[in-house]
This record gives sequence, C-alpha cells and structure tokens, in this order.
Amino acid sequence: MKSRNGSDLWAFFEPRSVAVFGSLKDGMGLGYVLIKNMLDFGFTGRLYPVNPSHNEVLGMKAYPIVNEVADPVDLAVVITPPPTVPTIIEQCAQKGVKAAVIVSENFADAGGEGAKLQQQLVDITTRSGIRIMGPNTVGVFNAANGFTTIPYPFGYDKIRRGGIAYCSQTGVVLPQCQPLEDRAFPISKMCDVGNKCDVNEVDLLNYLADDAETRVVAMHLEDVKDGRSFMDAARKFAARKPLLIFKPARSEAGARASASHTGSLAVNDRIYDTAIRQTGAIRVNTWQEYWDIPKVFAYQALSTGNRVAIISHSGGAGVVATDSAVESGLAIARYSDATLDKLAKLSPRLAGNPIDLGPPLSLTDDPMSLQEEVIATVLDDANVDCATIVLYVGTMAPISYIVEMFDRLLKRVSKPMTVWFYGTSLALVEEVSRQLEGLGVPTYTDQETAVKSLGALVRYSRFKSGLEGTTI
Amino acid sequence: MKSRNGSDLWAFFEPRSVAVFGSLKDGMGLGYVLIKNMLDFGFTGRLYPVNPSHNEVLGMKAYPIVNEVADPVDLAVVITPPPTVPTIIEQCAQKGVKAAVIVSENFADAGGEGAKLQQQLVDITTRSGIRIMGPNTVGVFNAANGFTTIPYPFGYDKIRRGGIAYCSQTGVVLPQCQPLEDRAFPISKMCDVGNKCDVNEVDLLNYLADDAETRVVAMHLEDVKDGRSFMDAARKFAARKPLLIFKPARSEAGARASASHTGSLAVNDRIYDTAIRQTGAIRVNTWQEYWDIPKVFAYQALSTGNRVAIISHSGGAGVVATDSAVESGLAIARYSDATLDKLAKLSPRLAGNPIDLGPPLSLTDDPMSLQEEVIATVLDDANVDCATIVLYVGTMAPISYIVEMFDRLLKRVSKPMTVWFYGTSLALVEEVSRQLEGLGVPTYTDQETAVKSLGALVRYSRFKSGLEGTTI
Repeated sequence: MKSRNGSDLWAFFEPRSVAVFGSLKDGMGLGYVLIKNMLDFGFTGRLYPVNPSHNEVLGMKAYPIVNEVADPVDLAVVITPPPTVPTIIEQCAQKGVKAAVIVSENFADAGGEGAKLQQQLVDITTRSGIRIMGPNTVGVFNAANGFTTIPYPFGYDKIRRGGIAYCSQTGVVLPQCQPLEDRAFPISKMCDVGNKCDVNEVDLLNYLADDAETRVVAMHLEDVKDGRSFMDAARKFAARKPLLIFKPARSEAGARASASHTGSLAVNDRIYDTAIRQTGAIRVNTWQEYWDIPKVFAYQALSTGNRVAIISHSGGAGVVATDSAVESGLAIARYSDATLDKLAKLSPRLAGNPIDLGPPLSLTDDPMSLQEEVIATVLDDANVDCATIVLYVGTMAPISYIVEMFDRLLKRVSKPMTVWFYGTSLALVEEVSRQLEGLGVPTYTDQETAVKSLGALVRYSRFKSGLEGTTI
Repeated sequence: MKSRNGSDLWAFFEPRSVAVFGSLKDGMGLGYVLIKNMLDFGFTGRLYPVNPSHNEVLGMKAYPIVNEVADPVDLAVVITPPPTVPTIIEQCAQKGVKAAVIVSENFADAGGEGAKLQQQLVDITTRSGIRIMGPNTVGVFNAANGFTTIPYPFGYDKIRRGGIAYCSQTGVVLPQCQPLEDRAFPISKMCDVGNKCDVNEVDLLNYLADDAETRVVAMHLEDVKDGRSFMDAARKFAARKPLLIFKPARSEAGARASASHTGSLAVNDRIYDTAIRQTGAIRVNTWQEYWDIPKVFAYQALSTGNRVAIISHSGGAGVVATDSAVESGLAIARYSDATLDKLAKLSPRLAGNPIDLGPPLSLTDDPMSLQEEVIATVLDDANVDCATIVLYVGTMAPISYIVEMFDRLLKRVSKPMTVWFYGTSLALVEEVSRQLEGLGVPTYTDQETAVKSLGALVRYSRFKSGLEGTTI
C-alpha cells in the first residue's frame, strides 16, 4: 500500500471511505457508537456500515456484505466476534480494501483458538497485502479530520488539535479513557497497535516522521517486534523529531504481566534502556511523564543551552524546582551583572536564582507589573536559555491577569519556558493551564514534571545540534 | 509552657483566646482576613483584635494595645511590619501570653536588619519563655476546631477532618494555596514553621506524637536545626506513628536556594538520607508523594505482608502497576489454587496477577457483579496481603455503582487497598475519589503513587512489627 504522502499508513488515519463491521443496535451497538463518534468529531469521509441484520443506521444505508459496496473502500473497521473476523478480512482483501483495524479482542491475547485465528489474519495480510492494525486494539484517532475507530462513548466532544502523536500498546491511552478535553493536550494523532499482527511501532514511526501535523511522538511500548528495525526507525525518527518512549514491563514480573496482556515476550530491560538512549530517543517512566513531557516539544522551540531561570511565587517551590533542575541535567543560570542591577532596582529582595517572588510582591502596590518585569528581565539575560515558572492562581491572582501578562510577555521574550500553577481550586488551575497553552506555553499538573520537561527539551536540543554539527 | 495534653505546643493549635495584631482594614487588611477565616471555619475561642486605628472589626471590640485585654490570652498572631514586632512580642510576654505566631516576613529570610530583628525575638523567647512560631510563616490550621493563623483568603470553606498532619517549612503547603476541599485530604493539623527562631520540627514531632487526632505526619523540611534532637524525636515518633519526610534542597544548588529562602545552612544530602532511614521514617521525594502517600496511613490499617494483588480495567495499566509494585518492594501475590479455581469459574479469561478485568467484563452481561466477585475473591486469598485497584469511571461505569460496590466489598474484606481511577472527566474522577475516601479507601491522582503508597505502608508495617518483635 503506497501512500498519498510518501509513507504507507495513510488509510488508517486519512481514509476517504470506511466500512464498519459490528453491531448497529441503536445507541448501544459498538458499530453504531463508532459511527456516531466519527460524525460527532466531524469526519467527512464516506461511511459504509456492513451488517446483514440492518438496512439502515443513523440515516445511512447498511450493506449485508462489503462486496455490495460499489465505491472503493480505503479502510475496514471490524468489531465482530473473533471467529467471524478472518472471513471479513478475506472479503475486504478481495474487494480491494487497503487496510483494516480489528478492534475485536480474544486473539493472541487469549491464547489457544484465539492465537490460531490471529495466525489466519497474518496469513491473509501476507498473501493479499491488506494492512492490519490489531487485533485487540481501539485503533486510531486523528484530530485533524475527526476520524476514529473507537467504538466506545467519549463523554466529551472537543480535542485540541496540535503537534503530539500519542502511540501505545494499550487502549487506556486513547480518548475514550482520558480527559483530553479537560486537559487540552495538543494532539495530532493517537494510535493503539494492540496485538500487532501486522502494523507495529516501526510502521508508526515511519509514518509519523513524514506526518506534517506531528511535531513529537510519545510512544508507550510493552515490547518490540523486531529490535533492529525498531532501532533503525527510532534513530531515523529522532534525527528529525523528538521521540519519547514509555517502556513499562521493566521488572521481570511486569514483563510476565505484559506477555499475558499482549501475547509478547520479555527482553531484559537494560537492553531497552541502552537501545533507546542510542537512538536519540528519550525514555520516560510514568504515565504522567508520558502525557506531559511531550507538551514542551509541541509548544516550544528547541533550547540553545541548559541554563535555566527559576521564578516562583513560593520560596519552597523554588527550592524543589532547583533540585529537579539539577537532577534533570539543567544548570542553574547565573544572571549577568546588568540583570542583577535591574532586579535590585525592581525590588531589594530580588537577587539570585531561583527567584522567590513572594517577598517582593508583598512589598509593592502593583504586583502584576513587577512580576511581568522580573520575568522579562530574567529571560532577556544572555546567560539564561530557558525558564520554569511557578505561579499561584486564585482570588489573589485571577486568570485574566495571568493570561494577559503572558500575552504581553510573549511579545518580548521567546525562550522556552514551562509553567506550573498552584491554587485552591482545581477547576481554576485547569482553566488557566488550558488558556496558557492556548498561547503556546506548556503547563503541568505537577512541578517536578514542569522542570523535567525542560531537561528533556535541552537533552534533545543537544542531540539534534550534535547531529547538525553545531554546539549547545 | 506546659500543655494541657502533655506536650508543649497546645497554645498554637488549641488556644482558648487569641490576640490578632495586623491591619483591620475592611475586607482587605491581613488581620481582618485572618479573623474572617477563623470565623468561617468555626473557631469558637475568644478573639481580641489589637490595632490602635480601629475600635471595632466584624462586630468585635478592637484594643489599642494587648495590655488592655482584661482576660488571659493564650496566643498572639502578629502580622505587622518587622520593626514593630519585637515590641509587640515583648508586650505579649509581659501580659503573660503563652505563644505567638509571627506571620510577618523580612527577618532572617531577608538578612541584614531583618536578621537582627529576628535575634531580638530569640532573646525575648529565651528570656521570657513565650514560645514563638516563625517569623516568615503562615502558621497553623487545625481541622478539629477551625483555628488558623492564615491571613489570606482560602477560596473555599470545607476541609475534611482526618488523620494526616502536614508540616512544612514553606507556606505553599497550607490551605490558602492548596485545593484541600477539591482533593478532600483527611487532615488533622497543618503547620508552616517558617524561620524557626524558636518552634521547630522537633517540637512539632513531640507535640503530634501525643495528638490523638493525628495518625501520620508528612513533614516538608529544608533544613534541620539540631540533627541529634531531630533524630531522637523522629525515632520516638516513628516508633508510634508513621512519619514521612520530604527533604528537598537535595542538590547543592537546591541547598543554596534554601539558604536564601529560610536563612538556613546546607548539609550533605546523603547525611539526611541515612539519618531519615535510621529513624524508621520514610523519605518521599516529590510534592505529589508528600501529599498523597500519607493517605494510605490515614485510611488503612498496617499490612501483614508485602504480597500485592493488582486488579485493573486496563491490561496496560496492570503492567505499569506491576513495575511500580516491584520497584516499591512489594511482591506480586501468587493466588492459591482455590482462588485460581474460583476465578476460572467466574471467567475463562481470569488467571494470574495482575488481573486484567477488561476481557472478562466484555464477555459478561453483569460486569459490576463480576468485578465485585473478582475483587472479593482475590482479597479473601490468604496469599494476598493488600491490593491496588485501577478502575474506569464515566458513562460506562457511573459513580454510584462504584461507590455502592465498595460499600459492599468493605463488609466482606478488610485488607489494605489503594485505588486509582481514570476516565474522560476530571470532575468525575475527583468526585468518585472523594466519595471513595468517604468510605475509607485511599485514592490517588496517579497510578504509580497508588502503588508506591502500598509500598510505604508495607515498609512501615515491617518496621513497626520489628520493633514489637513480631514478623511480617
């Protein structure tokens, strides 16, 4: 299958026409919910429900069998009992369908008969060339065109379009399980590769390397099908765009658990660790890092160096940020004499790094202006490469003031920064975070990850400039 | 100052009468806001505003000077410019006030003149015996009686009463900066010791060891005033109740930052690490661990062993939990043959540990009952000491079903457990978490901390049983 854009997975993410195999029971059938999800998210490709028990669903004609669809079909989405799946895929291949997402589970993941059925799928893809994602996957979501293969209710209807592709080997990472509207992650594409009977992490990396929407990939992997191919693909990908890898099943028990989850085999974790590092990818180790660290790459340019300014409403938080910065490979910036002079003029309690804004703000009648001047002054310093900022939001510092301040600041300074908000209301913290990311400034739900993200940015910036023969 | 309950800080947390020194400007003055906060949280002790510019505030008589208060005063709260503070404290000492919280900043934290003023405070406390908390502190909050010394708006009016005392060397940890209503942490007392010119972490540990409301202490410390006394106090405390210590300023740069934040000196971090371990306390390393790990001690009994059952709606999350469990010192429980038989009867896809509920639940018409039986069966197994559970909440699993299920489960099983919810709505995740903690089951905002918390529980349970000569 050759792509319209030079790589070979386009039919999974940008199909022009889709056949849906599954229950069309009104409001509940998985095929019905899937079609509804596509319509809700604005997918405008042609849809062909295939189910012999229905003539019509959601105002669309339903077909008893895929052969009866007259038009060409790019993609099949299959959510039917496992024993029915090989025949359906065979019929799709005969019809010339380019690719299929098999959502149904109980294949290699269940062992026994399921494993045999999966082998039949492998035989069909090998013989016919139809590409298969899954089985045992919820498949894909594409924020650019609203296309999805997820047959479960989302519970919300907005996903912010942006530069992060989240890939995984588990469905829990996809929109039907995650607060993507509340957190407003800037997403290009999402994908769960499931049992990987055909399409795997290597295909995804090759496809996403060419995907103009994707600036960074965060990849959850429980195992790798072919180590050498993966290393090659990861190396090529990381030379172009940042690649973050969350590889659980680190422990022996975790690897055993993974084997029963996805039918995959264990490899000593240290081998993964070394391999990931060699490719230029960055390993992350928790769900929180997997979700949050990519934001710095989606929103910020690379960093020209590792000298960080730490600016905080809380002295205690400034100390914690300093530890995190050092542990993430950042250097605590030493401000120039000119900057120190300017800061001293702004307030006698301003000196050094981290900057504790608490005392100076309590001594002035115009804390918002002082705060803005301090941030601008520090980021103007040639000795500073990036900044992490900790701010209170709440009754004493309303959202509108904060967002307007950053709007002005971003016209004055352009170095990478990350922000962590704290306050008495989770709703306010979430709202100001969403609004700030609307301006292109990444925000974090915990302070340590806000700092670690800058560490990851600097590390990748160094790797990239090393490839390009420049220094950082 | 001898206490009513055998230790010596009662006047800070349980004063019968309080003099407030600070601006009484309507709605804005820090003294005014403080008094309002105490009234809002239901403090019923006697209040004496002291300010020569006002005759009355919030319906109370204001006094020009503390001497004019006829009744005895247990505690003074001082929020006035630094140069005025020594005289106020002197007058309080003469009046026989037992203790003072000095909220004002710009003392040793500012150096120079501020450091001299702080020395005057030290001289007064030494000479007169009046106990001083601070300066440069927001002081205390006591969930049992609504008493607080915090002069900033809270933005909410409910704090769940419970067993955790959060102590810190920074104000950012106190209620005016944290979503304590939204997260519903079960709190006994909170305290920021600030510059520690008198009251310090040792006093707090001694006091809280005897405090019937407090089951566990989480202590944020940037430095320790007297290492030997601290070790003694921590050892004595940990022999009675769990003690979690968050000691930032781990890095050299962090220690320098701390020195300018609180005027304290740096000590090599490895010394702290060894010392903390020797006392039986448990070190935590992030804000999230500081806030969340204590919940397992507040809500659960100690564990009789380290064999954990992992039950999850997501196979991917089960693998991550397995890694976290192993890395936290837990052993993955091996179910008895009887349990494995029961599980196999419940569903052919149930076996092993972690349990991935996904496939079995998709194969049954009554997922809620199956889920309940699986959890009860596993926790009944004599080979299982504790459990960590990962559940989806949302349109497909409403809050009421989940809470009712745990209500029934808690009548059948009593082993320690932690729960992590995921879903598409942050509000739903927060709501089900609050409700489940209402039943006494600790919940977590991230999966890894839910598992680490069980690790901490097991570690402390072992330490405690070692002291008592039992084995675990």
